[in-house]
Amino acid sequence: MAADLAEQPAGYARLLEPDRADAIARVARAIAERRPRHVVYAARGTSDHAALYAAYLTEIRLSLPAGLASPSTMTLFGARPDLSDALVVGVSQSGGSADLAEVLRVARGAGALTLAVTNAPDSPLAGLAELSVDIAAGHERAVAATKTYTAELLALLMLVEGVRAGDGRLPAAERAALAELPELAERVLADPAAGALAPRYRFAGQLVTTGRGYAYPTAREAALKLMETSYLPALAFSGADLLHGPLAMTDPDVPVLALVGSGPGGDAMRAVLPRLAERGADVVTIGSAEVPGAVRIAVPEVDERYAPLLDILPLQRLALALALARGEDPDAPRGLNKVTSTH
Amino acid sequence: MAADLAEQPAGYARLLEPDRADAIARVARAIAERRPRHVVYAARGTSDHAALYAAYLTEIRLSLPAGLASPSTMTLFGARPDLSDALVVGVSQSGGSADLAEVLRVARGAGALTLAVTNAPDSPLAGLAELSVDIAAGHERAVAATKTYTAELLALLMLVEGVRAGDGRLPAAERAALAELPELAERVLADPAAGALAPRYRFAGQLVTTGRGYAYPTAREAALKLMETSYLPALAFSGADLLHGPLAMTDPDVPVLALVGSGPGGDAMRAVLPRLAERGADVVTIGSAEVPGAVRIAVPEVDERYAPLLDILPLQRLALALALARGEDPDAPRGLNKVTSTH
Repeated sequence: MAADLAEQPAGYARLLEPDRADAIARVARAIAERRPRHVVYAARGTSDHAALYAAYLTEIRLSLPAGLASPSTMTLFGARPDLSDALVVGVSQSGGSADLAEVLRVARGAGALTLAVTNAPDSPLAGLAELSVDIAAGHERAVAATKTYTAELLALLMLVEGVRAGDGRLPAAERAALAELPELAERVLADPAAGALAPRYRFAGQLVTTGRGYAYPTAREAALKLMETSYLPALAFSGADLLHGPLAMTDPDVPVLALVGSGPGGDAMRAVLPRLAERGADVVTIGSAEVPGAVRIAVPEVDERYAPLLDILPLQRLALALALARGEDPDAPRGLNKVTSTH
Repeated sequence: MAADLAEQPAGYARLLEPDRADAIARVARAIAERRPRHVVYAARGTSDHAALYAAYLTEIRLSLPAGLASPSTMTLFGARPDLSDALVVGVSQSGGSADLAEVLRVARGAGALTLAVTNAPDSPLAGLAELSVDIAAGHERAVAATKTYTAELLALLMLVEGVRAGDGRLPAAERAALAELPELAERVLADPAAGALAPRYRFAGQLVTTGRGYAYPTAREAALKLMETSYLPALAFSGADLLHGPLAMTDPDVPVLALVGSGPGGDAMRAVLPRLAERGADVVTIGSAEVPGAVRIAVPEVDERYAPLLDILPLQRLALALALARGEDPDAPRGLNKVTSTH
C-alpha cells in the first residue's frame, strides 16, 4: 500500500504525457460530437467515489445533468430505461465487475453512448463499451485502492474538460494548471503531518468524515479507506446532510475529519464547523483553507475542482499509518479480494 | 416518536382515500402527458431515502433513467444543467429547505417539469413547483422522521404507478394490493419482536445495515434512525458494495441487520449472507424470506416493491426501543432541529 501510494505523482505525470493525453482527448472529442443530453456513471466501491467526482464536474463544467446508476435496477430487476440521450460511463479499476458489464451491455443496447474508464484496457468492461480510457496506473499491489483512485480522478477530469473544450483538447490554462499536479502531489506526500495524526485515533471507536461539493467524494473515499484498513466504522456525510440527523452523533468522543478548502464548497463547510464546535466535536481539517483554532493538515491551494486530486493523499497516508498503529496489516485486509464479483 | 410511529397505518389509509388518491392521480396524469425523458430527485436526510426508493421505482416501472441530485452543484457552484427533458422532484417533509427550493427554482428556470412532495402544502417548496403532492401525514412531533417517511414512500409509489398507467389512475390490481397496506402495517407494528431485540444491541459500539434493490433505501433509513436516536454509528451498504471493502469490518463484534425479502433483491442478498457467516458476523434478518439459522424479524410477504413500506416499521421500533434501553431520549436528539436549514 505504501508503494502504491508513493507512485501517485508518477501516475499523474503519466496521464499527462502527450500520447496518453491525446488518447483521452480523442475520446472526449467523440463524446462532444455525440452531444449526450445527460450522463449516468456506474461504479462500485472506491471507483464510485471517482464517479461521484465526475458527476459534480459534469453538472458544473458541462451543464449536463449527471448521476450515479443503481446497477441493480438493470441487473436484478430487468429495468430497461431508455438511454438513447445518455452517455453511460462505467468506472472500474479491474474492468471485471459483472454487474457493471451488464449495465454497459444494457445501456449500449438501449442506444446510449458507452464509455469504460479502467486500469485494464483488455478487460471485459473496456471490450463492451464503445469508447474506453486506460487510466494507466500500473499494477496495484494492495487490496485497498489508492493509485487507481487518483488516476481515475485525473482521467475523468481530463475527459470532462476535453468535452467542455469541444475538440477534446485541454485549453492552455488547464494544461498549465494540471502540469503542476505531479510536483504538488509529491510535496503533499512528503509532508509527515497526516501520518503523525495516527496516534490521535489509535483508540477511536468511530470516525466521521465530511465535505461539500467536490470535497464530498473525498470524504466518502477517506471513510472507505479507514474502514478497509483499520476496521474503524467511518461515516461520511456531506456537510449539508450532517446537519440533518447525524450531528446528534458527534460529541467529544467522535473525531471528525472535515475537508475545508478554498472556493464555494470550502466556504459552505465553514458554516458547519461552528455547529460541530458547539457539540464539542474533535475536528481536524484537511485542505487549503486556514481555519482558526483547528488542527489542520494543510494542502496547497489549487482551484477547488483540482483539490480532490491532492486532498485524498494525506487521508490515504493517515489510513495506512493508523492501520499500522492499530496492529493491522493494510496489505491483507480481512475478508477482501482485489476483484469483487457482484451481480 | 412512539405516537408518530403508531399513526403510520392510518397515514397509509388516508393517502388511499378517494380524494387523496385522486389528487395524486391528477399529478401523475400531468406528468405522463409531459413525457419527461429522465427524472431527478432532490432531497436531504430521511427524505433522501424516500427519493432513492422512488428512483428505483422510476427506472424499473417507468423505464426512465432516474437519479438523485447533488444540490450543491446548483446552490454552491452555480451549475445550470439543461433540464428541459427532465422531471425534477423535490421531496421534503417540511418543504422548507432552502437548498431544495433553490434546486426547484433553477430546474424550473431551465425548463424542467417540477414537482414538490411535502407534508406542508403551503410550504415554499410546494409554492415553487409547478406540481405538488401533499403526503397528508399530519403534524410529526418527534425530530426523527417516521410517519412522514412512510407517507412519502406511499405517495411516490402511487405517483409512479399512476404515471405508468398513463391516465394517472392506479389499475385495479394495484389498488387492491395497496388497500391491504394499512392492516398489514398494523400487524407489523403489533409484533413485539423488533422491540425485544433492543437488549441485543445495548452495548454495541457500531452496527451495519444492508439490503439490495428496493431494500437498500430501507437499510439507509434504518441506519439513520439508529444514529439519530441511539447515537450508534450505523453504516448502510448495498449488499453489493458491502463485498467491496466494508466486509473487512464485519466480525463477531459487528452486528449486521440484513434486509432479506422475496424477489430479486432478496434473492441477491442471500448470496451475501454466506460471506457474512464466513466472517462470523452477528446477522439478524428483516423481511419476508425465511433464512435457515438466522435470527429474523418476520414481515408479511408482499410484492417486493411494496416491502419498503412494511420493512422499515420494525426497524423504527428497534431504533426507539434501543434509544430507551441506552438511556437516551428519542424525542430530544442532541443537537438537532426539526427543520434543517442548509444552503
